[in-house]
Amino acid sequence: MAKVAVVLSGCGHRDGAEIHESVLTLLALALKKHKVQCFAPDIAQKKVINHLTGEEMAETRNVLVEAARIARGNIKPLEELNMDDFDALMLPGGFGAALNLSDFAEKGENCSVNPDLAKAVQEAHKSKKPIGATCIAPALLAKIFQGKAPVAMTLGSDPSANEKLNKMGMKAEAAAVSEMVADEEHKVYTTPCYMEPPDLAGMFDGISKVVDRLG
Amino acid sequence: MAKVAVVLSGCGHRDGAEIHESVLTLLALALKKHKVQCFAPDIAQKKVINHLTGEEMAETRNVLVEAARIARGNIKPLEELNMDDFDALMLPGGFGAALNLSDFAEKGENCSVNPDLAKAVQEAHKSKKPIGATCIAPALLAKIFQGKAPVAMTLGSDPSANEKLNKMGMKAEAAAVSEMVADEEHKVYTTPCYMEPPDLAGMFDGISKVVDRLG
Repeated sequence: MAKVAVVLSGCGHRDGAEIHESVLTLLALALKKHKVQCFAPDIAQKKVINHLTGEEMAETRNVLVEAARIARGNIKPLEELNMDDFDALMLPGGFGAALNLSDFAEKGENCSVNPDLAKAVQEAHKSKKPIGATCIAPALLAKIFQGKAPVAMTLGSDPSANEKLNKMGMKAEAAAVSEMVADEEHKVYTTPCYMEPPDLAGMFDGISKVVDRLG
Repeated sequence: MAKVAVVLSGCGHRDGAEIHESVLTLLALALKKHKVQCFAPDIAQKKVINHLTGEEMAETRNVLVEAARIARGNIKPLEELNMDDFDALMLPGGFGAALNLSDFAEKGENCSVNPDLAKAVQEAHKSKKPIGATCIAPALLAKIFQGKAPVAMTLGSDPSANEKLNKMGMKAEAAAVSEMVADEEHKVYTTPCYMEPPDLAGMFDGISKVVDRLG
């Protein structure tokens, strides 16, 4: 039974954490009987998007407060995450990872990453604790590992997405929705989820493969 | 491969659809290769609750727009639901069912239910199409079936919750989180989910049993 920190970025794939990926991650962790603690940054969302129309809404929402919907209130501010207390780190995707945990949506490979997340990833890596990431979230790992370690990872089957990982010094590999790319040297495990066409059953396969390596 | 209508009540267990139940329902349906269409009422939420603190927020949100976060935009107004187009009906829980799809939260067994939902349930029942419901959602079925059919169903292991079903003329049965209560005569299938203590793996068992009866 491992203790796993799960970092969320809101609640909804267009402006926060991808809900399906987040819940399937929690299910996969529960099936392995791992102990989970969710975290999210206590900051305003970059945007609020109407998920019915795709249009931006004239609203302000807080990332931690909205992520608490997925976590049912069992969530802490990301600045309180100390990897000494956990055996593994997991980052579900959703565009919130590129909006609220980094500015990858705006700046691509020239992005910067939330410093609390970068610290947690670096601490996990240093302590050889496994790190999982789905969908767009591997891009944040790429930025954190840029210049430090050439990690094998995936953003799915689209070469242009994977090329962004390579520009940050990673070793990108194409993967289908039910596949995982494993970098056993650096203990980084990634699967594409919604970087590929919708396929919940395939996604659950991919996520379960990642979770199997977390403890 | 059945066509299943899934009725959501928002996004978040305190003021909308329970996110875990909704996503595990979608996963269970995907694993059976069923075709899914989500619906939600195009109305204001009764309340907006901060899921971190439990306090009410001074905000207005629309049930359909928020439910679209769970459905990734693949959702229609509940008034457009015509059971002629579907083989089964599924109602995930969450307090939104008692706030936005009915006023059960306020009035208990004296509640009234959203008329579009009541119509869909009655049409499904008349056509002998299976109906599934989780968590608190069976209470809405009880109100719709009151005076028409004494249906076996469950709100979990708590006698006081199940007693409310009996007051509406149902045949309540206690059930654990991984169990289903099946009324084969009326084709109504229910499982307690978060009416019981949190157990995602057990919930997925219970939901899968319900979904197995939907087609």
